[in-house]
Amino acid sequence: MIPRITIAEAGQHVGETVQIAGWLYNLRRSGKIAFPIVRDGYGLMQCVAVKSALPEELFETIKNLTQESSLIVTGKIRAEQRAHGGFEMDVEALEVIQRVPESDPYPITPKDHGVDFLMDHRHLWLRSQRQHAIIRVRHEIIKAVRDYFDSHGFTLVDTPIFTPAACEGTTTLFEVDYFEDEKAFLTQSGQLYNEATAMAFGKTYCFGPTFRAEKSKTRRHLTEFWMVEPEMTYATLDDVKRVAEELIVFIVGRVLENRREELKRLERDVSKLEAIQAPFGRMSYDDAVKILQTKGSEIQWGGDFGGTDETLLTEDQTRPVMVDRFPASFKAFYFQPDPERSDLVLGVDVLAPEGYGEIIGGGQRIHDPELLLKRIHEHNLPVEAFQWYIDLRKYGTVPHGGFGMGIERCVAWMCGLEHIRETIAFPRMLYRLRP
Amino acid sequence: MIPRITIAEAGQHVGETVQIAGWLYNLRRSGKIAFPIVRDGYGLMQCVAVKSALPEELFETIKNLTQESSLIVTGKIRAEQRAHGGFEMDVEALEVIQRVPESDPYPITPKDHGVDFLMDHRHLWLRSQRQHAIIRVRHEIIKAVRDYFDSHGFTLVDTPIFTPAACEGTTTLFEVDYFEDEKAFLTQSGQLYNEATAMAFGKTYCFGPTFRAEKSKTRRHLTEFWMVEPEMTYATLDDVKRVAEELIVFIVGRVLENRREELKRLERDVSKLEAIQAPFGRMSYDDAVKILQTKGSEIQWGGDFGGTDETLLTEDQTRPVMVDRFPASFKAFYFQPDPERSDLVLGVDVLAPEGYGEIIGGGQRIHDPELLLKRIHEHNLPVEAFQWYIDLRKYGTVPHGGFGMGIERCVAWMCGLEHIRETIAFPRMLYRLRP
Repeated sequence: MIPRITIAEAGQHVGETVQIAGWLYNLRRSGKIAFPIVRDGYGLMQCVAVKSALPEELFETIKNLTQESSLIVTGKIRAEQRAHGGFEMDVEALEVIQRVPESDPYPITPKDHGVDFLMDHRHLWLRSQRQHAIIRVRHEIIKAVRDYFDSHGFTLVDTPIFTPAACEGTTTLFEVDYFEDEKAFLTQSGQLYNEATAMAFGKTYCFGPTFRAEKSKTRRHLTEFWMVEPEMTYATLDDVKRVAEELIVFIVGRVLENRREELKRLERDVSKLEAIQAPFGRMSYDDAVKILQTKGSEIQWGGDFGGTDETLLTEDQTRPVMVDRFPASFKAFYFQPDPERSDLVLGVDVLAPEGYGEIIGGGQRIHDPELLLKRIHEHNLPVEAFQWYIDLRKYGTVPHGGFGMGIERCVAWMCGLEHIRETIAFPRMLYRLRP
Repeated sequence: MIPRITIAEAGQHVGETVQIAGWLYNLRRSGKIAFPIVRDGYGLMQCVAVKSALPEELFETIKNLTQESSLIVTGKIRAEQRAHGGFEMDVEALEVIQRVPESDPYPITPKDHGVDFLMDHRHLWLRSQRQHAIIRVRHEIIKAVRDYFDSHGFTLVDTPIFTPAACEGTTTLFEVDYFEDEKAFLTQSGQLYNEATAMAFGKTYCFGPTFRAEKSKTRRHLTEFWMVEPEMTYATLDDVKRVAEELIVFIVGRVLENRREELKRLERDVSKLEAIQAPFGRMSYDDAVKILQTKGSEIQWGGDFGGTDETLLTEDQTRPVMVDRFPASFKAFYFQPDPERSDLVLGVDVLAPEGYGEIIGGGQRIHDPELLLKRIHEHNLPVEAFQWYIDLRKYGTVPHGGFGMGIERCVAWMCGLEHIRETIAFPRMLYRLRP
């Protein structure tokens, strides 16, 4: 029985005859030799089929293989510095599982395709080397996020997707019919629930999809995106900033450690990621506005940053920038006021360098029950719906805080992508629900 | 500066003066001594406050503490075999962050409460020792699942929540208005998308919330539940069964390794979990029906198992049971037919022992494009909507298969719970959307 290996394992089988099961990625050929390049989801393997060493019929079959035909190749692994991955396989046998016919060829070819065409064929486009690399970096980021929290005393507590009330405004909520006449909304954040679970577990995090009915077409927004949200009790804004900084440094370190090959394939300038170390830049909202104005932004004190402002603040930075202490006027009801300036709240945004925009938003939450109730009234929110949230301030309230980090934004930044649509396997946007 | 520790770290600080930040869990007292038991999310610590050793006012404060009041205790850690966790703290100082007033006390007391009351107070109920244990076992299970797949060559590829078409029937779908006149459905399974990603990566898994508009009230169903779904190319039903078995053994091993304390608190008979080893019981659907009939079930050949049937099949089993080769008539359109019997398909269900029901469902998928198209027609499914799925059989199709494992079912089984509502922080059911 010939052992079946993945291409990633080739280095452990030099000199051995093994099997690889995959798909034809590319084929070069001459009269007497053919080089089918096989992909198996783990790597690429250049195979060498020599006419004189194979049955005539088999050599003909190999010579006429078509892109993405499925096949199982048997052959001997040989170290070959010039080959992709450092190894080649001398073909001894090859079984075609399915030959893609010339009459209906694989639709994605090495030539340039338009983005709409590629998005319509996303189920196939994921097989390309570039998309493959992005998804593997994404996996690495997600694993790093979980490993960080799991090893720092945070308990994972999944928060609900169906929620009865809105966390931040209602204009961007997706509504669902939830049995007889009841309406549910798809979550935009697990934060309010995290505050409950953090009171039970000390430190918690949730990690799942969140939804925003974003009607604008931008290169930074999806309607469905994944977010990790830690929450900590007995914690202040400084703790929130420290954990945000540590987390990002940890993730970048893991990506550099395990995904160099993928970053190279994406032509990512790795030195930009190697520069990501603590401490990050820190500035107040007040100072950020001043800097923006000198850079030509129209922003006035009291206004929220636009995407362009985020870019302006970080395009010349080599590390992320943490901006804190925002005007209360445009922040959500639950932010703890700045004890030194009542018009400000203890929120923080972390902006990625190189102009990739906000990747983290968070801060310290109100823990005083009277103040929370006041804010709920000021924001015209229904007290009844928030009664359980108010309870958290009645029964052993403590200072606490946390943040949300958008995974797709991180992937875009770390991979160096122009548009967020490539950061997830099947992106959902205003005009994109398929495939 | 006195170091702040979690109660879980007490063993590393014996003889030292440290701080614990938490909430009052319970209080015993006499005239000259008080024993506040503090919870901090990591454990319970019995503190010892001696009147003669403390300022009079502080001792009075401690004596009159109320349940769930938030506090920071400073004191020296001492080994004490009789205490919960093996340590006690001799109180040197205590700061009350918030005292819960007697006039509005913490609503959940050691006395019995009805389930509806507890579910209405789920945001507080999670602080109880029992709920705490369940959520920590859940976290362990999820981490084990991810570690298993991450270390066995599977790439995580998140599949979309918003889907345009139904995977299995439409009667239990939640519908969402997706911008101007478009309808989206909340995913019931990532499988179809997994088949696309597995063709790109060899082996993949998705892990996220799934939704079922289940109108029945049962103790095994939620409307929102988490599912992990691996998919493998160049794989057959036997591979699917092998991975399912390995995964379950791996998870149970991790839970036993790291969550003994929690299982004990749940009064789980640990010997039942220690018995979970490969090989699991294996039987065909044909044989399962015969066994059920001898046990008094009304089931006839061709009918699907009910919850009672699942219980009957496993109540006397010490290991999970894998039932395979089901009638095609009640299985989804994508199942690969049994080459030996055309009325059967290569599906497999894994039933937990002790009557906990189905935890895994999966099988081998159709890889022949003609047959898939035939089945799509037979099931009256819209070909156009499935074109991308058919594409997977046109461009390098290969035998492949996978399964879905419901996390809440696993938690219920491993924790020994009667009802699935306790397996997730904020369960969503027919009449339960709050808090």
